[in-house]
Amino acid sequence: MNDSGGSPAPKSVLCLGAAILDTIFRVEAIPATPIKVLPTDCVQIGSGMASSAASAVARLGGRSRIWGRVGDDLAGRQYLDDLAAAGVDVAQVRRVQGRRTPISTIIVDRHGERLIVPYYDPLLDTDPSWLPIDEVHGFDAVMCDVRWPDGSARLLQAARDTGKFAVLDGDIGPPGVVERLLPLATHAILSEPALARLAGTEDLPRALATAARLTPALVGVTAGERGFYWLEDGRVRHVPAPRVQAIDTLAAGDVFHGAFALGLAEGMAVAEAGRFACVAASIKCTRFGGRLGAPTRDEVLAALAVRG
Amino acid sequence: MNDSGGSPAPKSVLCLGAAILDTIFRVEAIPATPIKVLPTDCVQIGSGMASSAASAVARLGGRSRIWGRVGDDLAGRQYLDDLAAAGVDVAQVRRVQGRRTPISTIIVDRHGERLIVPYYDPLLDTDPSWLPIDEVHGFDAVMCDVRWPDGSARLLQAARDTGKFAVLDGDIGPPGVVERLLPLATHAILSEPALARLAGTEDLPRALATAARLTPALVGVTAGERGFYWLEDGRVRHVPAPRVQAIDTLAAGDVFHGAFALGLAEGMAVAEAGRFACVAASIKCTRFGGRLGAPTRDEVLAALAVRG
Repeated sequence: MNDSGGSPAPKSVLCLGAAILDTIFRVEAIPATPIKVLPTDCVQIGSGMASSAASAVARLGGRSRIWGRVGDDLAGRQYLDDLAAAGVDVAQVRRVQGRRTPISTIIVDRHGERLIVPYYDPLLDTDPSWLPIDEVHGFDAVMCDVRWPDGSARLLQAARDTGKFAVLDGDIGPPGVVERLLPLATHAILSEPALARLAGTEDLPRALATAARLTPALVGVTAGERGFYWLEDGRVRHVPAPRVQAIDTLAAGDVFHGAFALGLAEGMAVAEAGRFACVAASIKCTRFGGRLGAPTRDEVLAALAVRG
Repeated sequence: MNDSGGSPAPKSVLCLGAAILDTIFRVEAIPATPIKVLPTDCVQIGSGMASSAASAVARLGGRSRIWGRVGDDLAGRQYLDDLAAAGVDVAQVRRVQGRRTPISTIIVDRHGERLIVPYYDPLLDTDPSWLPIDEVHGFDAVMCDVRWPDGSARLLQAARDTGKFAVLDGDIGPPGVVERLLPLATHAILSEPALARLAGTEDLPRALATAARLTPALVGVTAGERGFYWLEDGRVRHVPAPRVQAIDTLAAGDVFHGAFALGLAEGMAVAEAGRFACVAASIKCTRFGGRLGAPTRDEVLAALAVRG
């Protein structure tokens, strides 16, 4: 018998951070010397860590909004069009007059290895005072990256203060940024390089313990094909990632963070949200095109069902 | 005493061929392995061989129009805006519905070495039947590249038939393209690799002689920092290029071809047009940003005056 009461309202995630226009080329091999190389495929899409996370939330059936900044150029317009087409609410992305939208070229080879050239306008506004911060009340979770530290600090703090999930995507950024944002989160999920740099060790249990001493947040780390590790009650816990044939890992971490935040917003425990997010990120890795490869909820559920 | 009669009307060049949106990153060094590299500068501009030539013509004070095709996307819009801003008449660039504008990423290192990744929509229309071919009467010269062979064949033929200068920019293209277009030009100026491939030899005098047997056109070759060689009355003639500190050779060949066609249109002899074009291209090489580095006429004249 079907539930005739209808689905519950989707949960919502407010994402803040990088807004960038990616150009992704797929090539057989990245040349070791400067020559001309003809790509076999190419996509151009609005992207960035927080933006790709927001897009993944929408694809998974959640409600998502992005707070960020672009220039008042055509690249900014395309970013906005792309994110809106992905179902993300872009009404509060600020178009900064006279500034250029960040752009990035990514060349991906057949093994998924990447050459990345990102360009950020050094004069793009960093002031977060315009953010309509009270609107955090209307969301179930926030997800912030390290690309706009002043904005992330403001939103993470506001989310904590109002009892919302405050997820930090702690990837490598300028020195001191992870250190600054870590204490403001409720869930600080770092990349392996960022955790190693923060803790001064690549030993994962020791590094997690070191990070945990710097924040009241739950501390975790995404470890690519090895899955997700986190510290709970002083013990390291682990969710493995499904084994896949990766052809494009670009935005896999962002898909993880979006899915993880949505999972928390839906009431999942950390282990369950981690499993949900690992599967979503793994499916993404099997598809070319950065965040465009993010899965729907049905795809994730089907994969989870097969794994048992 | 000044000439009070005013300047003569500028001469005009109709260019046909590549229309593409370039993203040019300047980096210290191009990494030999796939990693992230932060550029020190970045420009995004409408470009392509014929488009850059048209832009150089306008910068040099000539009148120029471009015939080509882009997609109906934002990259196409930006291409059109950029070329129009450069003073090129873009009224007859066709926007092909549902197709993508060609885009290219170029990563330039501090020595001017380049990694180029160009992407062409394989479904971009190639049919040249819409070209308003009779308008060739209104121009003094045409300049065609190898990126749209059907279009170039049609325009070169029409220009020859009406007694106009018909300049071919014979760079490396798909097999058979230079062979097809060569007989249709009045002035076929090839790149060194294209000439070597056509003639089956890297010996420049022999290669020029071989090429000349395939066409009634004057045949020449651009040889980068060594300048311009051409065949006249069975003899190889040569204009050296000024020695410069090259930091970006991107579009230097296009600037040469635009300047050369404009020189012919203005009544210069081949040697004079070649010298004018070599100096224009050399100045371009000293400036970052592809065709944006093309010089004004005053800059070329000043450089020519200093050389004597």
